[in-house]
Amino acid sequence: MGIVKVTAFTISLDGFGAGPNQDLNNPLGVRGCELHSWFFPTTIFQNMIGKAGGSTGVDNKFAEKSFENIGANIMGRNMFGPVRGPWPDDSWKGWWGDNPPYHTPVYVLTHHAKEPLKMAGDNTFYFVTDGIESALKQAKAAAKGKDVRINGGVSTVKQYLKAGLIDEMHLVMSPVFLGAGENLFSGIDLAKLGFKCVENVAGANCTHLILKRET
Amino acid sequence: MGIVKVTAFTISLDGFGAGPNQDLNNPLGVRGCELHSWFFPTTIFQNMIGKAGGSTGVDNKFAEKSFENIGANIMGRNMFGPVRGPWPDDSWKGWWGDNPPYHTPVYVLTHHAKEPLKMAGDNTFYFVTDGIESALKQAKAAAKGKDVRINGGVSTVKQYLKAGLIDEMHLVMSPVFLGAGENLFSGIDLAKLGFKCVENVAGANCTHLILKRET
Repeated sequence: MGIVKVTAFTISLDGFGAGPNQDLNNPLGVRGCELHSWFFPTTIFQNMIGKAGGSTGVDNKFAEKSFENIGANIMGRNMFGPVRGPWPDDSWKGWWGDNPPYHTPVYVLTHHAKEPLKMAGDNTFYFVTDGIESALKQAKAAAKGKDVRINGGVSTVKQYLKAGLIDEMHLVMSPVFLGAGENLFSGIDLAKLGFKCVENVAGANCTHLILKRET
Repeated sequence: MGIVKVTAFTISLDGFGAGPNQDLNNPLGVRGCELHSWFFPTTIFQNMIGKAGGSTGVDNKFAEKSFENIGANIMGRNMFGPVRGPWPDDSWKGWWGDNPPYHTPVYVLTHHAKEPLKMAGDNTFYFVTDGIESALKQAKAAAKGKDVRINGGVSTVKQYLKAGLIDEMHLVMSPVFLGAGENLFSGIDLAKLGFKCVENVAGANCTHLILKRET
C-alpha cells in the first residue's frame, strides 16, 4: 500500500514555506524563490529544463527521491496559480508550461468547480470542491497502490497534517531567513501529531530532514 | 573592540529554545533538555563535569568556540533560577553548583534588587534592575574589550535582538520538534533586522548556523 507523503518541501530557517504577497511575478511570495536555490544546481532540475550536467551529491539524491513512486499529486489552488475566486475562463494552465513535472493525476483543492485540464506528459488536473478528504480518496484510487504526494502550499500541507492524514515528510531547510510569509510551524505541534525527525542530513546548500509519524 | 554575541543557543527545528512549564525539575521546560543532547557527548562538556574523553568533531569545536573571548555574560532571571517575584532570601545560587561555568561577571536581568553574589572561579552575579541597555553598558565596561555574551533565555535574546544590540549569533538546531514552549522566531523578523546565515555546518548531532548582522 502506498503512503501519503510530503517531499522536498522547502522552508526557511524560521519556518516559512513561502514569502508574503504571492502574485504572478512572485509565485512563491517575495523572496520565496531563494528557498529553492538548493534545487536549481541539481542534475535532476537541470535535466528538467533541458540542460546537461548539474550536481550529483546529497541534494540531487534527495531531489530525485522526492519524485519516486508517486501515483497521484495533490496541491492547493494557490500552488496551481494566481487566479482567485471563480475561474474566469480556462486560460490559466499552471506555472509549468505544456508538460508539467507531475506525470500523474493532480488534484487541485478549490472552492470553485472547473472541468479537468488534460495536458502533455500524462498530466491531468482535477479540480476538487468537496474538501481534502475527498481529494485524498480520489488520489489514492488513482495512485493504484503507489504513494500520494501532498505538494503544497503551506496551508494545504497544514490542513492534511492537522487531519492526521500525512505519514511521512521530507523537509528541506534552506539557510535563509524570510521573517514573514506562510509559516509551516505556526499553530502546528508536530511532536503532538506524532512526528519525529529520523534523519538529518546536510547537503551542499541545505539540510534535509526526514520526519516519520509514529502511529 | 568586543562584539555582542549569542553563542551555542540551541533551538528545535520548529524554533523553540525551551519547552513549556519551566520549574525546578525542568529548568529548560518540559523536553527542553532534549535540545542539548548534541552538547553532552562533546569533550568540552565531559571536561566540565570532570570526565575524560568525549567527541572532538564539529560539535565540540563549535562548543569550544562558544566560550572563547568572552569578557562578560548577560542572562535573564529565569535562566538564573526558578525563583519568581521578590527574592525571599539568598539561598538560590544558580543551577551550576559552587563554580559556575562563566568565569566572568554575569549580569542578571531582574525587576527585584539583590546584592551581588560572588562565587568560586571568578564568577560574580550582578542583579540589574534598570533594563537591558544598562546591563549591556555594565557588561561592556567589565569585558574590557572582549565580547559580551547574551546567554538567554529566549525572551532575553529577543529583547536584545529587537533593540538591535546583537552583532552575531551562533544558533544550534537540534533535530527535534518541541511543538510548544518559547519560540525564538515568533514576532521576530531576523531578515528585517539585517541578519544573514553565513555558515550552515552539520555536526554529528545538530546543525550549526552562524548569523551575522549587516550594518
